[in-house]
This record gives sequence, C-alpha cells and structure tokens, in this order.
Amino acid sequence: MKSAQYQGNRRVAIGESQSLPPAAGQVRLEVAYCGICGTDIHIFHGAMDARVQKPQIIGHEVSATVAELGDGVTNVSVGDRVAVRPLFFGDPTTFDRGFSHVGKNLKFIGIDMPGGMQSSWTVPAYTLHPLPESLSLQHGAMIEPAAVACHDVRLGEVQSGETCVVIGGGPIGLLIALVAIDKGATVILSEVNSSRIALAESLGIKAINPLDVSLPEAVSSLTDGAMADCVFEVSGSAPGVEVMTELPNVRGRIVMVAIHPQPKPVNLFKFFWSEIKMIGARLYEEQDFEEAIQLAASGKLHLDKLITQVSPIEEVQQTFETIDANPDGIKYLIALQ
Amino acid sequence: MKSAQYQGNRRVAIGESQSLPPAAGQVRLEVAYCGICGTDIHIFHGAMDARVQKPQIIGHEVSATVAELGDGVTNVSVGDRVAVRPLFFGDPTTFDRGFSHVGKNLKFIGIDMPGGMQSSWTVPAYTLHPLPESLSLQHGAMIEPAAVACHDVRLGEVQSGETCVVIGGGPIGLLIALVAIDKGATVILSEVNSSRIALAESLGIKAINPLDVSLPEAVSSLTDGAMADCVFEVSGSAPGVEVMTELPNVRGRIVMVAIHPQPKPVNLFKFFWSEIKMIGARLYEEQDFEEAIQLAASGKLHLDKLITQVSPIEEVQQTFETIDANPDGIKYLIALQ
Ligand SMILES: [Zn+2]
Ligand SMILES: [Zn+2]
Repeated sequence: MKSAQYQGNRRVAIGESQSLPPAAGQVRLEVAYCGICGTDIHIFHGAMDARVQKPQIIGHEVSATVAELGDGVTNVSVGDRVAVRPLFFGDPTTFDRGFSHVGKNLKFIGIDMPGGMQSSWTVPAYTLHPLPESLSLQHGAMIEPAAVACHDVRLGEVQSGETCVVIGGGPIGLLIALVAIDKGATVILSEVNSSRIALAESLGIKAINPLDVSLPEAVSSLTDGAMADCVFEVSGSAPGVEVMTELPNVRGRIVMVAIHPQPKPVNLFKFFWSEIKMIGARLYEEQDFEEAIQLAASGKLHLDKLITQVSPIEEVQQTFETIDANPDGIKYLIALQ
Repeated sequence: MKSAQYQGNRRVAIGESQSLPPAAGQVRLEVAYCGICGTDIHIFHGAMDARVQKPQIIGHEVSATVAELGDGVTNVSVGDRVAVRPLFFGDPTTFDRGFSHVGKNLKFIGIDMPGGMQSSWTVPAYTLHPLPESLSLQHGAMIEPAAVACHDVRLGEVQSGETCVVIGGGPIGLLIALVAIDKGATVILSEVNSSRIALAESLGIKAINPLDVSLPEAVSSLTDGAMADCVFEVSGSAPGVEVMTELPNVRGRIVMVAIHPQPKPVNLFKFFWSEIKMIGARLYEEQDFEEAIQLAASGKLHLDKLITQVSPIEEVQQTFETIDANPDGIKYLIALQ
C-alpha cells in the first residue's frame, strides 16, 4: 500500500496509499502500472508548484484492476482490468460549450488532485475504460498518452493520403506519428535526438534531423512541392514554432499540441497568405480513449518499443533522476504492486 | 480615357488609359468607379514597392459597364453592369490543393499587374460578376471589399445565435460585422477611433473602445461569461494580436484577416488550453462575390453610409492625401467617367 508523493525541490518520497473506501459512483482500484509523463517531470522540476499541492501523490497514466465498487456503479465489475481517463469534471459553465474535457472547472487528476502513483486508489467510475483481454497491464498504462495522440490526430482531421509533419519525437510525437500512419497518412517526423530518430525509423516512421537539413526543403522535396496537409507542433520549442508555418500547404492545418508557457513570435502573415488553420488540442475525450485502446490492442502502436524501463515504486526517485539524465528514453513505467 | 498611375514616393499621376482591344476570353470595360483600399494606401506609402511596378495603374475595387467582348466570351453581354473579381489565375501547383484564389501563381490585379483606375480596362471574362438592376454602380464598387467580408465570415463558420468580436472598425471590419449580423450573430466591434465608433453604432453595431474599457471584461459581461464564438482580427495591430486570444470560448475561432508583415508574439498556451482555432482568410472565392452582390442589393450592408467621398479621377492625388489626413473616413471612390 505505497504511494509516490511529490515533496517539492526534485524530491518524490514513498508514502502510504490513501486507499479510501469507494463512495457512491466511485471505484477503488488496485493500480498495476503508472507511466511518468512530461508533465510529471515538470512537477518534479518545481515548474508547476503553483498548481500542485505539497506533498501530493502524482501520476495520471494508470492501468489497474477493479477492487471494490461504490453504490450505483454499473460500468465496471470487480476484477475488470481498466485504464483511467484522469479527468474530474466540475460544474459546467457557459464558457465550456459542452466540452467538459477543457471546461473551466475541470480538475486534472494527478495534478490538481491526488493521482495514481499509489497501489490502492479510489476514483469516479466515469473515468474508467475496460481493457480487452489481449492488452497487457503495462500496455494499459500507455493508453492515456495514446489517447492524447488519437485526440490530436482527430482534431487535425487527418485523412488517408495526406502528408503530416510531426515536430518533436518524444512519446506523444511518436504516438501521433503512429496514429496518423494508421489513418493512411504519410508522416515525416522532425527530431533532433539521434537515438529517438533511430527508434522512430525502427517503428517505420520517416525521421529527419532539422539540425542537419532544412525541414521545409526536406518536406518540399519529399512531397514534390505539395508540402504538408497537417503539422503537429509537439516540441514546445521556439524553432518548432518558427518552422511550423513554413510547412503547411494552402489551407493546411497546424495542431498545437505542445505547451508554450510564454507567448512566442508567430508568422501570422503565412496564416493569411495561404489560409492556414491552427487548432489547439488538449487532453482527450471519451472516444479518444476507446480508439487508443483499439489501436493498442491491434499492436499498431508498437507499445513494447516505446516502454524504456519498468521500475518498482520504491525506485521512483531514482527513476525521475534517470529520466532527467537520459534524453534518449521514451516511456518509464512505475509498477505499483 | 484617363488612368491613375502610381509613381513611387507618394505620387499618383494622371496618365492615359491602356485601353487594349479584348483578346479571346477577355472583355473591355468602361470603368465607372474604383474604390481606394488599405492596400492602395500601402502602395502609396511605398510599402509595396518590391511588388508593384513603377509607374503602374493601381486599383482593384471596380464597377464597370461591359463595352466590348473578345472571342468566345459568353458569361456577359455588352452593356452589362459588372463588378470585377481582381484575381488572375496562373498555373495551378500541387501546393495550392485546388484553391486558386490563394494559389502560388496567383496574380492580384491592381498590385501584381495593372489595375482598374482607368476609364477603359481590359480583363479576363472570368473575373466579371453581373450586378442586378437595383444596385448602383457606386455600390458596385463596394462589392470587392464586401466579398472579403463574406469570405471571412464564411471561413469563420459563423452560425446564427453566436457571438462575434471584430477587432478593428475600418471598412473591412464594419462589413464583417454587418455580414455576421446578417447570419444572425451578435456582434461586438472593438475600435479606437470615436467617429468610427459612432458610425458603427449608427449601423446598428455594438461598438466598444478598448482604450476606455477592458475588451475581455466587456465581452464577458455582455455574454454572461460565455465569451466569443468567433473573433476577427482586422486591426493589424500588436494590441489586437495580444487581446485576440483572451476573447474566444472553448473551441472558439479566431479569423486572421489582417496583414501582419512581421511575426508577433501569440499566446499559444491559450490555443492549447481552450482548444481555440485560428483560421487565416485571404481574398475571396466566386461564391463570396455572389453573396456580396446579394447582400449589397438587399440594402443590409448600408453601403451609402460607408462611402465617405466620391472624387473624379483628376483629384486622385488629393484623395490619397485626404485619406492619409483623415483617419475617420471609411471608403473613398474614384469616378472614372
Ligand atoms: Zn500525461
Ligand atoms: Zn481591397
């Protein structure tokens, strides 16, 4: 019954799990695995101290087994293997226009409230998505980031036969590339880290290092001048924002996936000139989780190759330090049982 | 048979009209009126000297009567009153994706090649849109800017019952507001010039001066916190770009109408956070001209109130100087006959 608690100042301590009996509409889970997200790294670095309590149990990329049901829960049964969609819906507002996943009163579980790096965890039943038999619990912990990718590709309206450019080859960038390929798109990944490039190529993704060649020129020559129908900015970098407007064709789309905390200079003229569209994309909706589960079960996401390391909860501090020291890694899982 | 020729250095001289006999597929027009656009003012200021020849006949907001047909022209007859869609389509490229109005080889008539400030003018027949009986030739010269507004509102996917904010109350901003109102939207116009505010109010447009009150707060209180479904950035100003991301609600749209020659800092975080969309919009397509003609003929665009002054071609230099000196003015027309 252990948990990983962010203490501030690059410290994640081992503590007790909260293990609350489920109230009506809630479910108690035995957590199997919890992935470490870029967001968790930001928390670890103290960059989200304004939003995260201290100490707080973090983690939001969870697979688990249902252990106990609160009153009125009918969507899962004890023993079901599930993934958790870590969104706590607050009261809707007129501002939200019915999109509760980005609503004003949304709380993100694992940031705004305690998360899933604990062996016994109680959550609202509506957060749960059953996993098929064929999907392992390790792969189940990858459903959350895969759902982000499904959401991004859906909002980008990627069609079969289109060309996509993904700027940034971390876990989300790679998953976006794989989801877009599944839609029938041709994908070009832009990434500066050579071992991530090698990994991408091993997954069947064409990858380019924009420090070696001009990305716009490479996209132009690979598309006979047609350029990209959809560009995903996943890098969060100033060069990423600078190049993103050089890549789309007429009426091409840019999906803004990355978090840019500060305003960055954007070539607005290009938006006007070629009638480019930019679409902000955040988190996921229910259907994105369902699609991610199907794709993961089909094997098309190559989740085995994306999991860099699995560590027991006792080694959570070391694991965060390893991630900081190893820019080549993709996804690190914490085993809770 | 006179023309207005840009000479560089804030000089527009009176010269001869080119008056070319129409080749196959061409039509010779007797031009009635030509409006002066913000783009023409940029040309006058020398800001477009890299693109505009010297001397060059400028002007692209034209109403005219058909005087002579080249071989094979069937879409108009001699004596027809027409508006001109000033787009010369070059060879299509794969980059264009079939959108010839923003294609790579597009030439804009009046900028990239001689324009309509000449009494006898020869153009491709496909540029012509017949005007209904009920529409005057002065109003016919307003069809081009009205078509810009129809295009912007169409690309913004404005629906009845939505709230729109238009940033910038010049000719295009006012026309966007009127077209959006015709779609059934509630419109809030943001404008810093008090006489333009008064004009907007006289047209039935709610107008706010963002120097007097906080625009986001005003939009919030006017919408009970629901904020804007669609924002049009027409100001071309840094404060316009700064405030535009503060106005949309979840999945709200920003239509980028203005020309921003230099990259400007954009709050990309807001795109991500509320899944905002930005849509670049340039020029018009055939259907936008048709819609503009219908709206103009219906009287809903109040074109009489938007025409500040009509001057003979002989006074074109003075008229450009008047526009520079009078930020209150809206649309100045040059009479060619
Ligand atoms: Zn995550
Ligand atoms: Zn114009």
